[in-house]
Amino acid sequence: MTPTASSHHGTPERKRVGAIVRIAALLGAFALAVTPAAALDALVQKQTFTLPSYTTVGGAALRDVKVGWEAYGTLNAEKSNVILITHFFSGTSHAAGRYKPTDPAPGYWDAIIGPGKPLDTDKYYILSSDTLVNLNAHDPNVVTTGPATKAPDTGAPYGPRFPLVTIRDFVNVQKALLDELGIAKLHAVMGPSMGALQAYEWATGYPEVVGRIVPVIGSGDADGWLVAWLDAWASPIRLDPNFNGGNYYGRAAPKAGLTQALKIVTLSAGAAPWANTTFGRKWAEPGKDPAQDMANKYAVEAKLDEIAAARAELADANHFLYLVKANQIFAAGGDVGLARITAPVLLISSDGDLLFHPSAIQRTADEIRKGGAPVEQVKISGGRGHLDGIANIQEAGEAIRRFLDK
Amino acid sequence: MTPTASSHHGTPERKRVGAIVRIAALLGAFALAVTPAAALDALVQKQTFTLPSYTTVGGAALRDVKVGWEAYGTLNAEKSNVILITHFFSGTSHAAGRYKPTDPAPGYWDAIIGPGKPLDTDKYYILSSDTLVNLNAHDPNVVTTGPATKAPDTGAPYGPRFPLVTIRDFVNVQKALLDELGIAKLHAVMGPSMGALQAYEWATGYPEVVGRIVPVIGSGDADGWLVAWLDAWASPIRLDPNFNGGNYYGRAAPKAGLTQALKIVTLSAGAAPWANTTFGRKWAEPGKDPAQDMANKYAVEAKLDEIAAARAELADANHFLYLVKANQIFAAGGDVGLARITAPVLLISSDGDLLFHPSAIQRTADEIRKGGAPVEQVKISGGRGHLDGIANIQEAGEAIRRFLDK
Repeated sequence: MTPTASSHHGTPERKRVGAIVRIAALLGAFALAVTPAAALDALVQKQTFTLPSYTTVGGAALRDVKVGWEAYGTLNAEKSNVILITHFFSGTSHAAGRYKPTDPAPGYWDAIIGPGKPLDTDKYYILSSDTLVNLNAHDPNVVTTGPATKAPDTGAPYGPRFPLVTIRDFVNVQKALLDELGIAKLHAVMGPSMGALQAYEWATGYPEVVGRIVPVIGSGDADGWLVAWLDAWASPIRLDPNFNGGNYYGRAAPKAGLTQALKIVTLSAGAAPWANTTFGRKWAEPGKDPAQDMANKYAVEAKLDEIAAARAELADANHFLYLVKANQIFAAGGDVGLARITAPVLLISSDGDLLFHPSAIQRTADEIRKGGAPVEQVKISGGRGHLDGIANIQEAGEAIRRFLDK
Repeated sequence: MTPTASSHHGTPERKRVGAIVRIAALLGAFALAVTPAAALDALVQKQTFTLPSYTTVGGAALRDVKVGWEAYGTLNAEKSNVILITHFFSGTSHAAGRYKPTDPAPGYWDAIIGPGKPLDTDKYYILSSDTLVNLNAHDPNVVTTGPATKAPDTGAPYGPRFPLVTIRDFVNVQKALLDELGIAKLHAVMGPSMGALQAYEWATGYPEVVGRIVPVIGSGDADGWLVAWLDAWASPIRLDPNFNGGNYYGRAAPKAGLTQALKIVTLSAGAAPWANTTFGRKWAEPGKDPAQDMANKYAVEAKLDEIAAARAELADANHFLYLVKANQIFAAGGDVGLARITAPVLLISSDGDLLFHPSAIQRTADEIRKGGAPVEQVKISGGRGHLDGIANIQEAGEAIRRFLDK
């Protein structure tokens, strides 16, 4: 493998990103050729890592594998201050900052990443990576390889002939990126939900590389409960007549099914206090009482539909199904399991989490401790359920800071 | 209205039921012409109540409204020993006993209904009623009126022109059945989930009739969280190309969508301890590792599909959507609300319930107490989540017995 890490520029759809690169350069934000060292008052830049060839855990050979990444802070001379951020199921590598000043919101963990924040960019180099089969395949700020990617041999999207990939494959591609950047050790690996799964996989798969992990709202394997939910999420996609067994590129995509799938994701990642405080029994439209007509909706229904429809615009249905599979078959450390972990663990969870049940979190902590690694546990109680690990991560901010600075 | 309560016989599809009636008669099980007084070692018989005309809460006039009902125990001379059982979303009036000796399982609350049991059939006359738009419209043991029913004016199923109906409509039809049977007072009204909603509606709508209520795993209105879940349940049906806006009678029904809808119902009514104890990460088929092929499944996925497919055979997609609406728009007592309740309340819930959140249960108890009625609360902890109210109702058995016998 001869991987390359390069900035985006040149192609027409990357012009805006190119402009951002220029702005960042004007701000004097580049410490190294390929790694932006901008403090988060500067803009964030997406970069592309290319692996000319990669063989999956299942033995499938892929050519020209690309994933996106971005970074916040400055890589020190020893390259010893790296924290790797791994993203959640429907997330991307955009963990902090903004691509342009007018972005409506910063990356998902901006509350804890930045100068003086728990993941202190004055101290750490925070590197965040897109995964293979990233859900948001059609987001111009996402770089990924999956069924929607044009296969080098045919020039047409892989579709369902793309090989099954695992969380370990996500981690192996990240490892190749770090090798390319000359980073031999990680101060920490940290991520929420599917990002936690990657953190466990890093700690079991590359124990010599990983200094510590902070898995957030995620357990060391997918239990039966999570397996069933992932399947329930996927079911609307297969019902959409446009799905056609995954062969829909170049024709109408199964957007209605994908929208309903994303709606169930959002709902099951939520919690009753959130729905009742934010919406309660409010109607979607004044004058349209839901009790008067089968078609009249409540605000909570309309808002979930709206969120899901917006997300479906940038997402790909096959990528959704490949992510479901990767999450379902996840069991960190294979036969040896979590006892393989040697790195200290800060395990952050929410007891209101419907997807990763408190019993799964506790079992994970217990199994890691059996192997001898120290586990510290912190609970968030923000009323958002699973999403507490993203929306209310600042509740665990000082615990994270202490753990990282140890 | 000139309602009639009659046994099934005569029509070809009722022959088997007719045979059961004969067996029951041979056992000497009939104390009254229309009401079987069989102890539950005798067989249960479904009966039909017909209302020649009924006007819904929304003002729609329906003719020839039928619902099924069954009863366990003996109605006393004063007709003062009646407990009305109201069923859950996907349930029927079959709360106890068997229709024939070879039935694989008895009615859903058989654990607490029978001679010497908390709902003691030696003492009480337990009457259980099908609702309007019952989900299991194609179950030969269910009698209901809804979109799948042939409209008297056309002879064709109503389909989506059937009027929107409410929990109050369900209760009003039950009231008409009681009037026909000469029952002026109810010792208690009791039911799980949507059955609890009917119990609250009885206590607010007909306070002078109801002696006490036992709502189980249900709150006094549908909060935003439940509204959203009901919508998520329904979404696969609308994706099924056979759904066709509800106009599918006489052609292929949207069975695939209905199956997926029922799968989400079963899962969200469940709980992690159940999924993990019963299935964990077991494969659906030996030799077919889910990690080896996108099509290979885990046991929990296959079992949920199997359960859902079996239930879809007897269910109707339009009825599902009408039930979703009736549950979403539910708020007992209208503008006055739960403060209208005067009857003592035994409120039974499970803290593992994902659908009726503990906060909704507590709010319900508090609002009833504000109106002055006494509320006793009991929690079930069987690890089945919402379904604890059915599968583990015996945990609350003695509390129910004491409350009913007060």
